[in-house]
Amino acid sequence: MKNIRLAFLGLGTVGGGAYEILQMNKDIIEERTGCTFQVTRVLEMNHDRLRQLGLDPEIAVTDPSLIYNADDVDIVIEALGGIDFPAEIMLKSLENGKHVVTPNKAAVAANFDKLWEAAGRGNAQFRFEASVGGGIPALTAIQEALAANEFTEVMGIVNGTTNYILTKMSEEGWTYDEALADAQAKGFAEQDPTSDVEGIDAANKLSILMSLCFGIYVHPDDIPREGITKITMDDIEEARSTECTIKLIAGAEKTEDGVKYEVAPRFIPNSHPLAGVKNEFNAIYVTGNAVDEVMFYGKGAGALPTGSAVVGDIIAIARDM
Amino acid sequence: MKNIRLAFLGLGTVGGGAYEILQMNKDIIEERTGCTFQVTRVLEMNHDRLRQLGLDPEIAVTDPSLIYNADDVDIVIEALGGIDFPAEIMLKSLENGKHVVTPNKAAVAANFDKLWEAAGRGNAQFRFEASVGGGIPALTAIQEALAANEFTEVMGIVNGTTNYILTKMSEEGWTYDEALADAQAKGFAEQDPTSDVEGIDAANKLSILMSLCFGIYVHPDDIPREGITKITMDDIEEARSTECTIKLIAGAEKTEDGVKYEVAPRFIPNSHPLAGVKNEFNAIYVTGNAVDEVMFYGKGAGALPTGSAVVGDIIAIARDM
Repeated sequence: MKNIRLAFLGLGTVGGGAYEILQMNKDIIEERTGCTFQVTRVLEMNHDRLRQLGLDPEIAVTDPSLIYNADDVDIVIEALGGIDFPAEIMLKSLENGKHVVTPNKAAVAANFDKLWEAAGRGNAQFRFEASVGGGIPALTAIQEALAANEFTEVMGIVNGTTNYILTKMSEEGWTYDEALADAQAKGFAEQDPTSDVEGIDAANKLSILMSLCFGIYVHPDDIPREGITKITMDDIEEARSTECTIKLIAGAEKTEDGVKYEVAPRFIPNSHPLAGVKNEFNAIYVTGNAVDEVMFYGKGAGALPTGSAVVGDIIAIARDM
Repeated sequence: MKNIRLAFLGLGTVGGGAYEILQMNKDIIEERTGCTFQVTRVLEMNHDRLRQLGLDPEIAVTDPSLIYNADDVDIVIEALGGIDFPAEIMLKSLENGKHVVTPNKAAVAANFDKLWEAAGRGNAQFRFEASVGGGIPALTAIQEALAANEFTEVMGIVNGTTNYILTKMSEEGWTYDEALADAQAKGFAEQDPTSDVEGIDAANKLSILMSLCFGIYVHPDDIPREGITKITMDDIEEARSTECTIKLIAGAEKTEDGVKYEVAPRFIPNSHPLAGVKNEFNAIYVTGNAVDEVMFYGKGAGALPTGSAVVGDIIAIARDM
C-alpha cells in the first residue's frame, strides 16, 4: 500500500474533524484507496490539541516553510482560517508540487485565480469541496459528474446561521433579535455575527460557485450583497401570504447581458425545493442545459460533516497518485 | 487534443440524448476535457435515427462483436435496454479493455458483481451514474466525494412514475387509477406499468445503491418489495392526519443483524426532506457516519437529464485517459 504523507495547517474544528475521520474510518478508507495515510507535519501551536488527537507533538512546526518546502509531505490540508497568511502557504505549496485541500472559503474566494494558476504551474491538485456547503459534495459534482452541462443558474442557501435565524422567524414567530440570540446560544452564530448576517460569508461561497459554474472570477468584495438584519415580521408575513418563504440566496444567473449575481434575501415559492431547506441546513441548487435542475442538500458546517468533504478530497488525490 | 472514440449501443431516448449533449455542448466539453469525441460505431438498426442525429449510417453495425472487438473504440455506451444481451456485450467490452458507460439499471443490477470483476480484469472503467436517479449525480458522489464515510442508511425516491402518481393522489385527491391514467397520458408511465408500480424498477436501483454504499450485492429479485397498487385514499388520508406523506422508498439500513433492505411505501414525516420531493422528481438520501445526512435531488428520467449523467461518465473517463 502506498503511504500518503499529510501536513495539517491547523487542527481546530475542521482540521481536527478531518483527522478524526481518518482515524475513525481508517479501515474503509485504506480499502477504498489502497493507501495508508500518515500525518508527518502540523502547523499548530496547541500541543495539548495534538495529544488529545493522539498525535506526537514532535511533528509540530511553527515555520510554514518547513511544510511547503518539506520532502515528506504529499498533501497540505490548510484549515487555519484567515485570508492572506493561509493563501500564501497554499500558493507556495502548490507551486512546489504539493496537493492542497482546504475548507477555507475566504482564502479561496479572495485568491481563486492565483491558487488555480499555481496548481497548474506546480502540476498539483487544488481541492476545496468543504469551502461551500460543508459536507455537501456539490463542488465536485459541478466540476465532474455534471461537467456535460452549460450551467445557466446557481442558487445557494450556503450560510447555516442565517438560514437558522430565518427559519425560526418564519416558523416560530421570533423576532430577528430573538432568533439571533438563540443561534448564538446554540453555537450556530458567532458572538460577532457580522460575516454571516451581512452576507459576507455567503458572498465568498458565491464567488467560488461562479468560478466553477461560469468560469468567471469575481472577488467577493465586488459581489452586491444584502444581509438579513433588516428583515421584519412584516416581511415574513408578506412572504407567507404569497405562499413563499424568505431565504438568503447566494445566486448567479447567465443572462444576455452576462452573468448577474447577488447575495440577498428572496421570496422563494413554497413549491420550490429550496423553500424546504430549514434550520442550519444548506443546499446548492444548480440548473444546467442538459440536467435541468439539481439540488444538493446537507449539513453546511460541523467538524465531521465538513471533515467528510476534506477527507473526500484527500481520497480523490490519493486515488490519482 | 486527444480523440476519444465512442461506440453507442442504441440511440433511443437516452443514447440519443447523450449524443445530442455531445453536439450541443461540444465546445465546453472539449475545453473541460482537452479531448475531442468521435462516434466510430453504433449498434442501431434504425438508420433514419442516425440521419436524424447527423450520424453517417455507414458506421452502423448489426454484430456487437464488431464493437467489443474493435480497435477503434475506447468507450462503449450501452443504452439498449434489456438484461442478458446488453450485459454480455458490456462484459466482453470490459474484458477487452474498453471502458463502459451505461444507464441500464436492470442489466447492471442483475450482473453487478460480474461486470465489476470484468472491469478489474480488463483494467477498464465501468460507470453507470445514469442508472439510478437519471441526471442526479448521486452514485459518483457516494463512490468519490463521500468516500470518507461509512454509510449507515440509504433511502431513495428513485421511480418518477410512482412518485408522480402518489403526489397526485396526495395533492389532488385523485384515485390510483386516475393518477395512473394521467401519468400514462403524460408519458411518465408505460402502457404496462408493472415494472414501475410493483417496485421492480426501484429494486434494481436499490440493488445498485447497496453495492456502492455497503459493498454487498443483492440480486434485485431477492429484494422484498411492495408496490403502490394497493394504496387507497384512506392510506393517503391517514398519512396526512399524522403529518406524513406516502412515498415509495427504496431503502437499506445497516443494523446489528446486517443490512436490512426493502422497496415499499412508507409514511415520511413532512419535516423530512424526502417528503418535499414531488411529481416526477427523484431524490437519493444517504446517511454517513461523518457527513450525517445528505440528499441529492433532480430529474430521474428524460433524454437530456439522463444523457447528462452518461456524458458526465464519458468525461470522467476521458480525463483519466
